[in-house]
Amino acid sequence: MGVIVVGYVPKAEGEAALRLAAEEAKLRGASLVVVNSNRGGRELGGAESANTDSHLEEVQARLTEAGIRHEVRHLVRGMDPAEDLISVAAEVSADIIIIGLRRRSPVGKLILGSNAQRILLDAPCPVLAVKAAE
Amino acid sequence: MGVIVVGYVPKAEGEAALRLAAEEAKLRGASLVVVNSNRGGRELGGAESANTDSHLEEVQARLTEAGIRHEVRHLVRGMDPAEDLISVAAEVSADIIIIGLRRRSPVGKLILGSNAQRILLDAPCPVLAVKAAE
Repeated sequence: MGVIVVGYVPKAEGEAALRLAAEEAKLRGASLVVVNSNRGGRELGGAESANTDSHLEEVQARLTEAGIRHEVRHLVRGMDPAEDLISVAAEVSADIIIIGLRRRSPVGKLILGSNAQRILLDAPCPVLAVKAAE
Repeated sequence: MGVIVVGYVPKAEGEAALRLAAEEAKLRGASLVVVNSNRGGRELGGAESANTDSHLEEVQARLTEAGIRHEVRHLVRGMDPAEDLISVAAEVSADIIIIGLRRRSPVGKLILGSNAQRILLDAPCPVLAVKAAE
């Protein structure tokens, strides 16, 4: 029985990752571990935290309805999203990690974010990356 | 019927990509398009070219033996590997692209190569990235 770890944030790139993860879970007969990571502290205000909670409840409802075995982990332990995702993937012996990518183009140049780069280079398993719709 | 495009070079990262691509082709009931891309010109001497040809023949033999429908494209048309891979993926309406990653660490820093970054950001479909064994 396979396990897929998916990085989720309530943004376009997180939604793209979750959609693909649901498809892959069905294809592989795998279960999903949805990881939402926040460093915590000043970055995570009360309103934002409540907003994330309601998004995660909605995610659980969607996956339940789709008949996909899943678990949602909301991690606020002072680690970067890349560190959280990699440590969960190692813990559950994930078959693949799925992440969403957003183009970052502060000066017109396309680059990958540092979290995405770190996950790709340090993951204990293959990483499936999907771009958010633009 | 799905199609997987895989970037192949006769190096550790190309072998890692090809192994994973063969597994994914079986899982998805998909066919493989193996893309070996060289810019050509000075970069590709006669000896290196012959070496690549013999590797590609071996690849074809392995895929045939594994019962995986495949096609090998050896492209020498002055384009970067990223451009070649993306154009083939668009042409065949690939479901996914599979690439191998190598850590590059000239000054001890881990970075993704520019071809990998470009493929991840510009691919017309999700990209599955696997690291070469170290």
